This record gives sequence, C-alpha cells and structure tokens, in this order.
Amino acid sequence: MRAILAAAALVCALNAAPAVAQTSPLIVEKKVFELPSYTTEGGQTIKNVRIGWESYGTLNADKSNAILITHFFSATSHAAGKYAASDAVPGYWDAIIGPGKAIDTDKYFVLSSDTLVNLNANTPNVVTTGPASVNPDTGKPYGLSFPIVTIRDMVGVQKALVDTLGIKKLRAVVGASMGGLQAFEWAVNYPDAIERIVPVISAAGGDAFLTAWLDVWGQPIKLDPKWNGGDYYGREAPNAGLAGALKVVSLHANQADWANATFGLAPAAPAKAPGAAMDNQFKIEAALEAGGKARAAGADANHFLYLVKANQLAAADPAKVKVPTLLVSSPNDLVFPPAWVERTAGAIAANGTKVQRASVAGPNGHLNGVLHINQAGPAIAEFLARPLTN
Amino acid sequence: MRAILAAAALVCALNAAPAVAQTSPLIVEKKVFELPSYTTEGGQTIKNVRIGWESYGTLNADKSNAILITHFFSATSHAAGKYAASDAVPGYWDAIIGPGKAIDTDKYFVLSSDTLVNLNANTPNVVTTGPASVNPDTGKPYGLSFPIVTIRDMVGVQKALVDTLGIKKLRAVVGASMGGLQAFEWAVNYPDAIERIVPVISAAGGDAFLTAWLDVWGQPIKLDPKWNGGDYYGREAPNAGLAGALKVVSLHANQADWANATFGLAPAAPAKAPGAAMDNQFKIEAALEAGGKARAAGADANHFLYLVKANQLAAADPAKVKVPTLLVSSPNDLVFPPAWVERTAGAIAANGTKVQRASVAGPNGHLNGVLHINQAGPAIAEFLARPLTN
Repeated sequence: MRAILAAAALVCALNAAPAVAQTSPLIVEKKVFELPSYTTEGGQTIKNVRIGWESYGTLNADKSNAILITHFFSATSHAAGKYAASDAVPGYWDAIIGPGKAIDTDKYFVLSSDTLVNLNANTPNVVTTGPASVNPDTGKPYGLSFPIVTIRDMVGVQKALVDTLGIKKLRAVVGASMGGLQAFEWAVNYPDAIERIVPVISAAGGDAFLTAWLDVWGQPIKLDPKWNGGDYYGREAPNAGLAGALKVVSLHANQADWANATFGLAPAAPAKAPGAAMDNQFKIEAALEAGGKARAAGADANHFLYLVKANQLAAADPAKVKVPTLLVSSPNDLVFPPAWVERTAGAIAANGTKVQRASVAGPNGHLNGVLHINQAGPAIAEFLARPLTN
Repeated sequence: MRAILAAAALVCALNAAPAVAQTSPLIVEKKVFELPSYTTEGGQTIKNVRIGWESYGTLNADKSNAILITHFFSATSHAAGKYAASDAVPGYWDAIIGPGKAIDTDKYFVLSSDTLVNLNANTPNVVTTGPASVNPDTGKPYGLSFPIVTIRDMVGVQKALVDTLGIKKLRAVVGASMGGLQAFEWAVNYPDAIERIVPVISAAGGDAFLTAWLDVWGQPIKLDPKWNGGDYYGREAPNAGLAGALKVVSLHANQADWANATFGLAPAAPAKAPGAAMDNQFKIEAALEAGGKARAAGADANHFLYLVKANQLAAADPAKVKVPTLLVSSPNDLVFPPAWVERTAGAIAANGTKVQRASVAGPNGHLNGVLHINQAGPAIAEFLARPLTN
C-alpha cells in the first residue's frame, strides 16, 4: 500500500497534476478471483490463477450495466476511489469514475481487475499470478519457467471473472494504453460479450518501433547482475535494473513540455552544479531516478519482462473490430503516436464499424490519457449512454 | 578501421539507405593536431591534447575558403571520402561533401576533426583525448579523473587547430546534431572567426527532456558491473552496457516508419517465434542488439558518459547568435523535435539575425539529417555561396 501510494504520489509530483477536490471518496474493497487453471494462448496451463479485482457502483437486476476497466502497463486494478478515506490519492482514473462522473457509478457497475503478471506484484492490495508466484508443482517461485502470457490471456482471465459474476454482456470495455490493447482483444475475441470499447492512448495491430522500445524498457533489468537470468527469488532482487527500467518508461510516457515546465535545467541540488562533477545531476534526472526506485520497491523485475513480452505480442487486428469504438488519443503521445492511432481508426472504419474520436491534450504526452482524462469525460459519457442502434 | 566500417555498414543496413554510385572516391588522410595543454571551461588543464582531423579540397592563398564540419555524438571526423579506395563506405556526409557537391571541394577547403572524448576511442583512424587516454602525470588512463568537458571545450580545441592553420575566418561551421551544438558555440564564442553556421538536426539553449534522455542513453553502462565506477582499463570493458547504450541511441535517433518498413513484426529467426520463448526476439530487436555490439567494439564506455555530460551541459544561447544561420531540420526528429527547433529559430531571428530554413524528410527521424542530407544540398550550397552582405 505504501509503495502504491508513493508511486501514485510521485506521478502526481512529477506531473504537477491539478489537485482534485475530494469530498467523501468512494471507498473500495479489493476482492480476489480464483481460477483452478487457465490455459494460455501458447497452450500452457497455469494452475491456481489468482487475480485481484474491485468494483464501483451496483450491478443491476438483469446484469446489463457492467463496464470493465482494463489497466495500463504499470498500473493495478485501482482505477477509482480509495481503500481507506485516509489514502493520499485515489485510483488513477478517479476523475472519470464515480457518482455523477463520466463513467457514472450511479448508473453503471464498474469493475476492474489486476492483470496476469501485474507489475506491482509486491504491493499490498495487488493480487496477480506470474513468475513471482509459487508454482504449486514445485513449491518454489516460477521465475522464467512461468508460461509466456499475452494480452489475450489477460482478457481470457477477465472473461472468466465476468462469467462468474453472471454478466452476459459488458456495456463497455474501457482502458488506457495496455488497457486499450485489452479492449481491442475483447472486441476481436468476445464480440458477443461486449457492446462497445473505449481504447484510450492505444492502437491496434502491432508496431515494430514500439516492439523495439519495449525491449529498451526492459534492458536495464537484464544488465543488473542481480537479475541472474530471472532466478533471484529468496535473494536480493534486481531493483537497480528495475528502477532503471521504470525510469525509461516514465520518460517515454511523458513529453518535453512537461520536462521543461516542471524541471527546466535546474540542478538536483543547488550547491552541486551538474557541470562540476560527473555525479552531479540535473533535477529531472534525480526526480526520474527517485521515481523509478520508489516504484521498483513494490514491483517485480520478471513481471516487468513478462509484460514487455505480452505487449510486444499484442496483435489484435483492428479490421476485426465490429463493435462501436471510441478512440481517445493524445496528440503528442510518443508510445502510441498519432500516425498509428490513425492507422487503427482507418482499419476499424474500413469494414463499416463506427469509430468516434476524442482527444486528451496537455504537456504529458502518453500520460495525458491518465492525467488529463477528464477532457474526454463528456465524450465517454455520451458514448456509453448512446443506444446501440445509433 | 574494421569497427568503423562495420558500424557504418550497419547504419546502412539498418536504414536501407539508397546506394550511391561511387566512382573515383576522394581519398583522405588522417592527420593529428597536438596542443601542449588546454584549459577547460571548468578551469581544469589537460596536458598533451591530441585530436585527429582530415580535410578535403585545398586552402586558397588568402585562407578564406575554409569550412569546418563538426561531428555528431557517435561519429568521427570522417565526414567524406575514403581512407582507401577499397573502404566499404565513405564518410557519413559524402553525399554533400566532395568535388561538385553541395559543399564543393573544388571551391572550399573542408576540414573536420575528432572531438575531445570522441566515442570511438578504440577505432583506428580516430585520435582523441579523454578518460581512456593516459594521464601523463600518472602514466595510467584517466578514467573518471578526466576533467568534464563541454561542447564549448570541443570548439575551443577546434579553434586552436584553425588558428594553427592560419585561418582567420571560417566561411562556415556545418554540423549535425552534436555537430550543430558545436556550430552554435562557435557563433556565440567566436563570432569574428566565422561567417555563418549550418546547424543540422540540432537546436540551441538546452532542453530538460533531452537532458533526461541523455541520462537514459548512458544508464545501461552504469548498470554493467564491468563498468566498475569507470575503473576498467586493463580489464574487461563494460561492452554489454555500452552496446545497450548504443542500442538506445540508435532507436531514439530513428522513427516508426523506418522500423515498420525495414523489419515489421518479423521474428529474428523463422523457427523461433517471439511468443514461444522469452529469449526469442523480433528481428528489429536482434538487429539493434547486433548494431550496438558492433559499434561498442570500437568505442569506450567512459567516453560515452563524458559525451552525455557534454551534451547535457550544452546551453549556447540562440539569442546571442549574430551570424547568418541556415537551420536544417527533420520533421519527425525525436531527439531535437520540431518545437525546439522553432524556439531556436525564433530566438535567433528575434535580434535581427537572418535565419534560413531547410528540411530533410524521410522515415528515419533524427537520422534523416545524416541519411537524407542530400535533400538539403541545394539550400546548403546556395547559403554557402551567398555574399555576406546579402
């Protein structure tokens, strides 16, 4: 919990997000969904799958008001509300999820689950199954013997959760970044189980440039000798490499306007000019380093690498999306750049599927989709409320 | 030599640069410039400074036809021609430097020097002074005891070389990326010694986002245990970290159109699907890894980190540029993005200095300024030929 709060607080500090007045917050409870076994897209079986989930609002009698929120690479199921009123910050999309908000919990039953191989495996309130989990066959952590999982596998486990709740059809799947990739997989694989999707700061069909960037994201972990080929459980974890990896993600997910406005060329310490010694840092370097370290404390390095692989393998074909789609994108996104979003929109529309667009602008690049999601609130609310025949 | 050719060949292979027909190539010779001592911007003295340089064309009688080419981060003084007719590839800007070309060696005496702390310290034909050099006071390599040097220091040594040649005024300083930063420093510090500058894929005044990216570039080196705080001379060098660092640079300096057209989502090996095992790579990952390794063989890790520091400290004030400037930029440059180039152009023009613009487009982002420089050839030729009174 402390780690997740630290991480969330850091995101706020780094991004100078406008403070949102919080009156009586939505109090949410973490629940656990268990599956005796799940067989991956690659044909391997994982026993005792456990993932955490939470919900906001009430499921109606005919179970027709459910909306699934799918989370991004470094997030958890904690999309809205607080676990306790004293929590420093609410879930990452609290600006649009709650009573009277764009995703109105007075109308909808909103659920959100931790993915397989969730990054924050060592954070309280996160429940996931991945390489850091104990293999019931050996009694030891899987490490790299854990099966490769895909975005489709994340969605497969979510589908089992939704089935268990008796929900035949989701009103929508809404997710940012990797959450958008999950929304596309829902559309392609379970078109009869959803009405519509809202992929935010995301695009479909695979891209070689992002494939290479994902490799660069994970590279620091593999260079840390404590990673030891993935075999470090019971020893000191490769947290220097993991912190370095998270630093790369934080930078790639942001933009120059943020960097210049928040830090400029200030030194990390006034008495230590960056030009005076090799170790003297600029403020932005120190902030990204501290952020990476804080987030690494609650995360697992192998989970990071499994997420890299899952994202590299994401290849849902946008031409197969047959449900109405609201694409929310950020004009200065470096992770899912505008040209790729355009390709995706074009491919979806080419077969007659309705594609609506909304934009989230700001200084934060990719992270505009998290920090400034309120801009897309009206478009999301309207899209969710629209009768399907429209 | 082999390393530099391998690196150059790799750049070509990675970028599928169009083959340029080479008839009788310009044959160039590497020369060495020596300074008994140089005092850095930070006030430290380096003894026995040695840098390599080469030239193309002939210095005229009144020494008024000299153009200085300043090189980019991972380059050397080898801007044009070949050391031997059998060389696989010519210097990096051979498309615009040579007899009858945009920077016409029938008219101009073109010179180019290796910078201080040149990255390719272990490459034949590269002569530089940096942390890998032997400290004459101790008889051992400097390592991190080498003084921090700045872009202005690189330029200070070049100025001494130009003075030694009896050149009172350079017709132009022309350079790409870090070479552009050197051109700005020439303009700000030696305005009477130059007529004009051509910064290519570059911008002035410092930027917090690039400052942080430079840190991310160097991060893999520091995570490699063989780096050992910079003390590795006489032992195995941290080439895994250095290769990783070069991989980050190669990716950041390119763009999505290149990645998708050159590699797509092909696997590195047809029988090893990336989804089948954690170690199975995509083709783009394997190519970038091989490229990094090949380039690391001729490079030095501490020199890389000193270059990171020098580039982070670059802060030539564009408002102080008083010589006519031709800014050549790439619209999809991720390293010196368009918005920063615009800021630079605006700051130069604001005080009445003439700023002309040219563009190099293509799939390669920042590297368009190297691989597609021919597009700017006519603009550069016209700018160089124009009487100063214009």
